[in-house]
Parts: sequence; C-alpha cells; structure tokens
Amino acid sequence: MSKTYLVADVGGTQIRAALFPADHPQPIKVIRTSTQGDGQAPLERLLDALASLWPDGDQVAAITVAAPGPLDPYEGIVYEAPNVPGWENLPLKNHLRERFNVPAAIGNDANLAALGEWRFGAGRGHNNLIYITVSTGIGGGVISDGQLLIGAHGLAGELGHTTIIPDGPHCGCGQRGHLEALASGPSIARWVEEQLAAGKSSILTGRQPITAREVATAAAQNDALAVAALRRAGTYLGIGIANFLHILNPTAIIIGGGVSRSGPHLFDAIHASLEERVLSRQYLDDLVLTTAALGDDAGLMGALALAQTVARS
Amino acid sequence: MSKTYLVADVGGTQIRAALFPADHPQPIKVIRTSTQGDGQAPLERLLDALASLWPDGDQVAAITVAAPGPLDPYEGIVYEAPNVPGWENLPLKNHLRERFNVPAAIGNDANLAALGEWRFGAGRGHNNLIYITVSTGIGGGVISDGQLLIGAHGLAGELGHTTIIPDGPHCGCGQRGHLEALASGPSIARWVEEQLAAGKSSILTGRQPITAREVATAAAQNDALAVAALRRAGTYLGIGIANFLHILNPTAIIIGGGVSRSGPHLFDAIHASLEERVLSRQYLDDLVLTTAALGDDAGLMGALALAQTVARS
Repeated sequence: MSKTYLVADVGGTQIRAALFPADHPQPIKVIRTSTQGDGQAPLERLLDALASLWPDGDQVAAITVAAPGPLDPYEGIVYEAPNVPGWENLPLKNHLRERFNVPAAIGNDANLAALGEWRFGAGRGHNNLIYITVSTGIGGGVISDGQLLIGAHGLAGELGHTTIIPDGPHCGCGQRGHLEALASGPSIARWVEEQLAAGKSSILTGRQPITAREVATAAAQNDALAVAALRRAGTYLGIGIANFLHILNPTAIIIGGGVSRSGPHLFDAIHASLEERVLSRQYLDDLVLTTAALGDDAGLMGALALAQTVARS
Repeated sequence: MSKTYLVADVGGTQIRAALFPADHPQPIKVIRTSTQGDGQAPLERLLDALASLWPDGDQVAAITVAAPGPLDPYEGIVYEAPNVPGWENLPLKNHLRERFNVPAAIGNDANLAALGEWRFGAGRGHNNLIYITVSTGIGGGVISDGQLLIGAHGLAGELGHTTIIPDGPHCGCGQRGHLEALASGPSIARWVEEQLAAGKSSILTGRQPITAREVATAAAQNDALAVAALRRAGTYLGIGIANFLHILNPTAIIIGGGVSRSGPHLFDAIHASLEERVLSRQYLDDLVLTTAALGDDAGLMGALALAQTVARS
C-alpha cells in the first residue's frame, strides 16, 4: 500500500483538487470544479472533489487545502473568503477530518504559494524568500530560515497591505495608500483610466473600462501611457520590496500573479526602484528577483508541501 | 567546576561586559569601560574587559558580543560600526575565539535586544514579537515562531529603515521618508526646531538646539507644540507598526530607547494610528504594546540569551 496526499486549492472561480504520490511532485490525477453555481455549497463541492480522487488501495497520509482570505491555520478556520459563498468562520479542518478521518491542515493560499515556490518552483534552495502575487489584489508569503512565516495567528504575509503612501489612493481593504492600491491589476487600470480622463493620449483611448492585461499589451507596443503605468507600479513595488528586504533580508523575491507577466517595463522599474531605495548593497548582492515558476499551480503545490509536513509530524 | 557565560554589549560610548552563571540571569560581575579614548583600540578594550572577568576555576561555556551596525552573525564579521573607530569588516568572532579559545558568537545589538526582551524582559511568553528601539536612530529585532529572525545574511530587522513617506524627510542612512527620519529622537527635535523657526510658540522658544528629551519634558507640561511633535512621531510609528503587524502578525510590540520614555502622548498616538491603520481587528485583539523592561541592559541580556544558545549547540 503506497502513501499518497490529497490536496486542493480553492479559488474564487474554481476548485482544483489533486492526488499526489508520496515520492514525487507529479499528480496522479487532477480535477477541476467550479467554486460556485448550481446552488450547491462550495464546501460540498470541495469535499466531493477530494472524495472522488480517493485512491483504490493506497493510503492517504494527509489532506490539505489552500484557501483564500484570512484564516487560522492552527485551528483550521477560514475567517472570511469574500469570493466563496458561505465561507465565514468555517471550521474547514474539522470538516476535512470528519469526512475523511486522516490528518488534515489548511493554509492561506498566498502563504502556501510561497511554500510551493520554495519547495518546487522558483525559490528552490532559498531558505529566506518572499513571494508576492500581484493580480486583482496583492498577497504574499514569507519563508524565513526554512520555515513558512505565518505569525501568531496565521495572519502574516499580508505584503499588499503595507502602507506606501499614507494618504494615497483607497485600497480594496478600506485603508489608503497600500501597495495593493498602487500596484495591483485594478489599480494599474484605474490609474490609466484617470490619465485618459485627464486627456492623456494612448492607444487605449476610448476603451473603457480598461484591464491591466490591456495595459500590458499596450506597453508591449510601447504606448507611452501604458509604459508609464507599468513603471509607476514597478516603482511602488520596489519601495515595498525594499522595505521587505530591510525587515526580512531574503535572497529571493518571487513575483507571481497576472501582473507579473506584464513584461520588462514592470521589472525594469522594480529593479531601478530597489537600487535607489535599498539601505546598502548587501541586501542586493546575491538577491534573485524573478517571476514565479508554478503559475496557477503555486497554491496547489504549496498544499502538497504542507501535506508532506503534516504527514511527517 | 560551574559553567558561566561571558557577554558584552558594545555601544558608541561605552562597552559593558558581564559574567553570568549558567543557571540564572543575574550577573556575577559587570564592568563598564569607555568605547573610545586614550588612543587604545575599542577591540583591545573589549577583549581586556572580557579577560578581566574570566572566572577563577569555573568554565566559560560561551562568549558573545552585541555589536552595533550591520554585521554578519554567521561569519561573525562587523561590516561597519560608525561610532566605533576602526570597526570596519572586523572579524570579531575570530578575535574572540583566538583570544579565549571558547565557543563565540556575535549579534546585531538591536536584534539581540529583541532576544533579551523576549527571554528575560517585556516579551516573555510571546513567541512572535517585535522590538523597536527609538533613540538617535530606530533599530529593531523580530522574534518569529520562537526564533530570532536574522535573514539570509543577518541583516534583517532594520525596522527604522522602512519607507513611510517616499518623498519624506532625509534619513541618517541617506534615503528619504524612513520611519527613522520621522520618529527618531533627532527627527522629533528637528521638527520642533522647524516649527519654532516658522514662528510657532512654545515654552521651548529660544532654546536651540533642542533635544527629544526636552520635547518630552515640555510635552509633560502640556506644551502644545511639544505634544504635537510626540503625536506626529507616534502616528508615524503606528503606520510602521501596522505594516509590521501585517507582515509578521506578532502578539507583542515592545518599544525601547530613550524616546519610548516620552510619556502617554507618544503611546496614545501610536494606539490611535494602529487602530486606524490595521487591516482587521484580529491583528490587535491580543496584541500587547508595551515599553521595554530591560532598558540599557537589553543588548547585554540578549547576548546572554545568545550565549545560552551557543553553549547548547
């Protein structure tokens, strides 16, 4: 009887679940299901997806789930998942244990993505690294001295909700001037819309609403306004990352999420901003700044890394 | 033969060295010597101070030194200590080993102060805490999951050199808008001087240059300008601390250094700023925000905690 791991990643639009063997990170089977729809609760969908992957004859050593929103990984409770109907103070770990009767654990999706990139992706070999996902929001995860840093209640790693400009633009969280309010996809798009409304010319003129992806496409065609938008976001990301370097002194910064695929203008600006803002060269000397390697699989692979840890403990 | 620890804290003005027994944190003997003067090198003074404490008959299980400035605790090299003549790329750990032939280690003074407050001071029982020292500069240290967070090269915890206002006032490090440039003692005094020069009235009028201690004294007498200066510093400290909460999710914030003794105006403003800036109540629910308990002994006691660790490893 071989040992296996059952893992899942719950996103706002889809749930992905996978069965992994114990000895290598290639899934035996993966299934995808919509998070919402049909009036069926996302929890049932998740549990059914995991059940459908249950291996014949093999042992499941651990079940783990990457979940969105603030959660308590110690107690296994999802406090709030804005895009998942009904997930409020949900005792997800208990549900997993009751249904499957094997060791179970849950983790914040961005934190687990950091773990995934560290163990299986762009961060291999870096025992101190920072993962930042830049898409609709900005999330993050920190590996410190070879451990996922989750803090006293598992609420650490909210890198997007650090203040860059105290009286800056409003953030999705209700605060102002957070990194997320300056460099996320929607904030990039919003800035371009504001500039167009103010009369700036661009090949994006007339196309409203605008998406960050359209800005990236326009920037690839050297549209000056789109390039400026990516440079602006990169400059703010650099300020935030310099702060993270001074606090955490990692050797790798891994940037994932849709906005990370915006091309060289964004990364050139991050580099320039870092060079300008860093306290001393020693923070940059052996720093690797790179895009994520696992793409949409980062959360799932992080859940696998968590499962391996759970099974060992 | 009993086991003892020899520890020292090197400051810009004085070196303190102490001999501790293995089993409790009361020193057997403490000596102080000036860091500078007499043309004698600070390194010789430090080594001689430690030698003079060498116990008769007892074993020294470890020697540790808290040192200022950026340093590499892995290699035991002090990169730069601006207030200690000649300490540039100084292989301090090797010097300790060669002279005394016992296990030795060094650490950044602010990082070790965090360790000291955690093991012996205001942070006991908090396995996730942040120590911030606010005096001439702003330094810090982080305990994460029961371990001192030092990062890949020991350069972590530079909490004073995180950007609060990207185009803000100049910082001692050469950058702009760092927490240190907004809330350190000199930055508080400088702001009051600017306000006086602009014609604001205060009981401090005519007294130039002004120190942060004078501002605190004036604030205790309800001088409006002095109160405003402390509130301003506290507000910025709150913004910085909110960032640290979101990144690290600790249960204790310990504030040391001379400015921490400025009274309730500073702490009221920190509290108010935190309440306003925090991402969710969960970061504050069981958070202890307190002044340091060890005062000037924090670095020395941190060196003791480091010595205990070195002796065990």
